[in-house]
Amino acid sequence: MPSPADHNEKHCPVARSVDVVGDRWALLIVRDAFDGIRRFGDFQRNLSVSKNILADRLRKLVDANILETQAASDGTSYQEYVLTEAGLRLFPLVVALRQWGEAHLFKRGEKHSVLIDMETGKPVAYMAPLSRDGTYLEPVRTLVRKVK
Amino acid sequence: MPSPADHNEKHCPVARSVDVVGDRWALLIVRDAFDGIRRFGDFQRNLSVSKNILADRLRKLVDANILETQAASDGTSYQEYVLTEAGLRLFPLVVALRQWGEAHLFKRGEKHSVLIDMETGKPVAYMAPLSRDGTYLEPVRTLVRKVK
Repeated sequence: MPSPADHNEKHCPVARSVDVVGDRWALLIVRDAFDGIRRFGDFQRNLSVSKNILADRLRKLVDANILETQAASDGTSYQEYVLTEAGLRLFPLVVALRQWGEAHLFKRGEKHSVLIDMETGKPVAYMAPLSRDGTYLEPVRTLVRKVK
Repeated sequence: MPSPADHNEKHCPVARSVDVVGDRWALLIVRDAFDGIRRFGDFQRNLSVSKNILADRLRKLVDANILETQAASDGTSYQEYVLTEAGLRLFPLVVALRQWGEAHLFKRGEKHSVLIDMETGKPVAYMAPLSRDGTYLEPVRTLVRKVK
């Protein structure tokens, strides 16, 4: 284990990500976007969030190039919010939130939604960092190499 | 893609996780705990966060069984905060934040800290959900099966 030491926040990728998505509403909006929700009113209904907060978070996610706006897919005048290429790469983050929640925040037998691999019809396998031999890489077997 | 539909937040593991760790300070505290930081003063210095906010977030993380307190490892009277078994299982979440940040929030050639697999001395491999054949499972090849 490294000894306690100052992180250099400027050089820390975790800190930069947290600045962009380390927010309750941002994370739930991204989850909903993966789930196919695209319109302001649909986000608002699903999240029971105020219009002001939702507009603010959507704008920030667009500014961060996680969502982009496009004309409605059905030809109506609605604006839709869809994940960009970078936004789609947040999938592991959403899966990590889901799998940790499933394992630690539900009682045995308590029902929860399940992320399904459509090809197999089965739940998506547990995702974790892997060591060279393909086994779970324990955090104690890692260290953060700081920028000099 | 599923059609837009109400999430049932009560049955959503993502929402439950977000309620616990979907907060800027909570995520940075957890990151620091993985990095070996254990003491109030060390978290405070590293995060440049007010004592009130830090105390609040540490308490919430203890209440959520992510951190636990123990006597100082050096025999002094300090209290230390260490990750529980459940807290250690947040490693994939921190890795997801790190890897997304590395890929999308740094310019080419810009320096950042690197998570190293101590066995190989190399950066931890990219982590993502995998399909049955071991390839990256695209989000469009998944769906969330809701609780009836």
